[in-house]
Amino acid sequence: MHAVSDAAVYTGRAAVRAGVLVTGTEVLTGIISDRNGPWLSEQLRDLGVDVAMIEVVGDRPADLLTALRHMAAEGVAVIVTSGGLGPTADDLTAEVVGEYSGREMVLDEALEERIFEILKPLIPRWANADPAAVRAANRKQAVIPEGATVLEPKGTAPGLVVPPLEGAVGPTVVVLPGPPRELMPMWRDAVLTDAFQSAIVGATVYRREILRLYGIPEAAISATLRAADEAGIRLAELEITTCLRRGELEISTRFEPAAAADYDALLTFIDKHHGAHLFSRDGSTIDEQVAALLLADQTIALAESCTGGLLAARLTERAGSSAYVLGGAVVYSNAAKSEMVGVEPELIAAHGAVSVEVARALADGARSRFGASVGVGITGIAGPGGGTPEKPVGLVCFSVSYAPAGTAAAERVLTRSTQLPGDRAAVRDRATTVAMHLIERLLQGDSD
Amino acid sequence: MHAVSDAAVYTGRAAVRAGVLVTGTEVLTGIISDRNGPWLSEQLRDLGVDVAMIEVVGDRPADLLTALRHMAAEGVAVIVTSGGLGPTADDLTAEVVGEYSGREMVLDEALEERIFEILKPLIPRWANADPAAVRAANRKQAVIPEGATVLEPKGTAPGLVVPPLEGAVGPTVVVLPGPPRELMPMWRDAVLTDAFQSAIVGATVYRREILRLYGIPEAAISATLRAADEAGIRLAELEITTCLRRGELEISTRFEPAAAADYDALLTFIDKHHGAHLFSRDGSTIDEQVAALLLADQTIALAESCTGGLLAARLTERAGSSAYVLGGAVVYSNAAKSEMVGVEPELIAAHGAVSVEVARALADGARSRFGASVGVGITGIAGPGGGTPEKPVGLVCFSVSYAPAGTAAAERVLTRSTQLPGDRAAVRDRATTVAMHLIERLLQGDSD
Repeated sequence: MHAVSDAAVYTGRAAVRAGVLVTGTEVLTGIISDRNGPWLSEQLRDLGVDVAMIEVVGDRPADLLTALRHMAAEGVAVIVTSGGLGPTADDLTAEVVGEYSGREMVLDEALEERIFEILKPLIPRWANADPAAVRAANRKQAVIPEGATVLEPKGTAPGLVVPPLEGAVGPTVVVLPGPPRELMPMWRDAVLTDAFQSAIVGATVYRREILRLYGIPEAAISATLRAADEAGIRLAELEITTCLRRGELEISTRFEPAAAADYDALLTFIDKHHGAHLFSRDGSTIDEQVAALLLADQTIALAESCTGGLLAARLTERAGSSAYVLGGAVVYSNAAKSEMVGVEPELIAAHGAVSVEVARALADGARSRFGASVGVGITGIAGPGGGTPEKPVGLVCFSVSYAPAGTAAAERVLTRSTQLPGDRAAVRDRATTVAMHLIERLLQGDSD
Repeated sequence: MHAVSDAAVYTGRAAVRAGVLVTGTEVLTGIISDRNGPWLSEQLRDLGVDVAMIEVVGDRPADLLTALRHMAAEGVAVIVTSGGLGPTADDLTAEVVGEYSGREMVLDEALEERIFEILKPLIPRWANADPAAVRAANRKQAVIPEGATVLEPKGTAPGLVVPPLEGAVGPTVVVLPGPPRELMPMWRDAVLTDAFQSAIVGATVYRREILRLYGIPEAAISATLRAADEAGIRLAELEITTCLRRGELEISTRFEPAAAADYDALLTFIDKHHGAHLFSRDGSTIDEQVAALLLADQTIALAESCTGGLLAARLTERAGSSAYVLGGAVVYSNAAKSEMVGVEPELIAAHGAVSVEVARALADGARSRFGASVGVGITGIAGPGGGTPEKPVGLVCFSVSYAPAGTAAAERVLTRSTQLPGDRAAVRDRATTVAMHLIERLLQGDSD
């Protein structure tokens, strides 16, 4: 489903590499999913630091220590850890990092006082909490490797930047708490420290650009990239990743500022070959584009059968969407199709509920019932049941129609029938993407 | 938000450990998020295999090889890899695993033929695709380490189970493709192979039981677990993890079969203290419970404002839901509330669109317009805009009503107003959970 294209050319390792070490038994065991690793990875890349690995380990000191040594052996300049900074006995990251770096653990009394000031107002909220016990537990959080730079807590746990010992070779370790809302601002503080800046000296700052295409197979892009190479565009200067996502193709390119002309040449080449499919040159998503078009004085209404409200949910995901989404009808039964948006029972009898004719009637019916300028109709077979040889699972019919609000007859219509791959969830999700692209084309002036 | 409870007691390392190795530059760089690592971790735990680490690396052979060696050095019996099995040159996992295990790469001609049979019907859909070129690219996928067990493709990529060489000591490597809908069934095939079963000999098979509670804070469960401990229930025999998820509290307990009596005692204790909140004793989800209740001769229709179709999408996510979901209306505008489900404009004027009165009218209106036995109305302020001091962001009003289909007056009604925490996406998602629990209680016979 996802693939890095043939044309992805790594221009050799970046001068500065990093490892991300996520700790926590609840992450390792799959109870909660980690968001910190990918986030830190993106942040590091934007600083020109290449992430070599993300490793998740449980709350066992031996596993933590082994992971630190493994990353150091790979030559990383920076290790960023997340988690394990709480007051309880199993929160051991600071101590293990101290051991790893060969630094003695010392109590920072001023830090202890600052943490206590944070905790004090919280104590009355804890039933049975003994202030002295709380203070003792949190003294632990003020015991840090000697010589480390402290990152002030955003919750109650301080972070650390721990450089290698004077004269020693090895990575600088940035120690951050697990909760993302603490980790994110503390990461920004960490980046500003002298210790961190010294560690990443020599990192190249890259540019990243994203293109999005729709309605084109990945193989066609691979062929185009090969052709671009043959045409003399220096792809070796560009790190290109292609990825299929929700039925769209994303081309992400990372390059040094000096290679900007190569990137521009590639963009022109792709535009020449696939201009009709290249819907985003600036990384904007189809959701953003449709929202912007609708905000320009349009309103929209939907009648969904097989997507069961997913397209309405997708359109209303955006803050402010109430300005242009008037509403929708989820019309699973034939009776609901007629009753809610006025599809003639005879039309359903003649063509079947899953047909372009009914999709068209759903679009017009939604538009007129809600008084919107844009109407969308979707009807199909999401599966796993309900398929026939003529109308197999995955067949979805779409129609989008436009007329100034209050006008009965459509001025412009796009109607399509598509066979979508995958299981029920994939068919439903993919159908919303097809609909978003039809809406965009309709709003750009296209018509059948 | 998530926490392993105080009572979580790890009973020491299992005899058999595993590592999970996720490959893919697009995962490492945060472009897409990994779901395979946590899923495989849970699957392994259910087999009594303890996951020591999850590591994510990019598509670089050297990094892959290093990660395999690092895990082997940690003494794992099994390594499961995901990704890097596609037809393109940068998909290298099979080859690297071959090198790691010291096995020669050989072409499996029968496998090549089977892959070609899968590809053949797809070729006409690729513009400009030369069948011979496709065939050559996919021959690569049939080149496998000698002596490996092949896992038949669910997409186009075969998986592998690669044991250590005869007489050698080391982990067995299970090689799976990246797309979850291929990985999941192929994992089940892998578990059944002799090579895999030999690798995990000695693993203790644990039981896992899941309880679900609704409407109770996590702190209350922590206190109950402490009380259970004091009451003599041997929690040390049980590995208990509590987790807040989508507004529900999940208690997952893993234990050796010999500790079944301790688990039963704990269940009885929790039931005694929180019976009214314990909605699932067998791990079943609220979605499953509502679906089962609706299947027993009920039909449902919805009128959603702030959730914008999310509840309809959630209910229709399940295969076969068309048997009981008649439909829904997404009624963002006041005009749509009146036009689509007959809410009196005077009622909106008197109480405001976000009010229990309007929620009640939406529920009754949905029920009667669609001719369903159950009606649901949701209206609220998802934010970030639209809040007032009296009706802040996060305020959501719900009503569910029941009457035999075709009856106008409701026989039973539950109406609630709740202040939900979090951002727009969290409020919308949480609101669907509140609605699901109200539907369940209504179908169980509750009424205001």
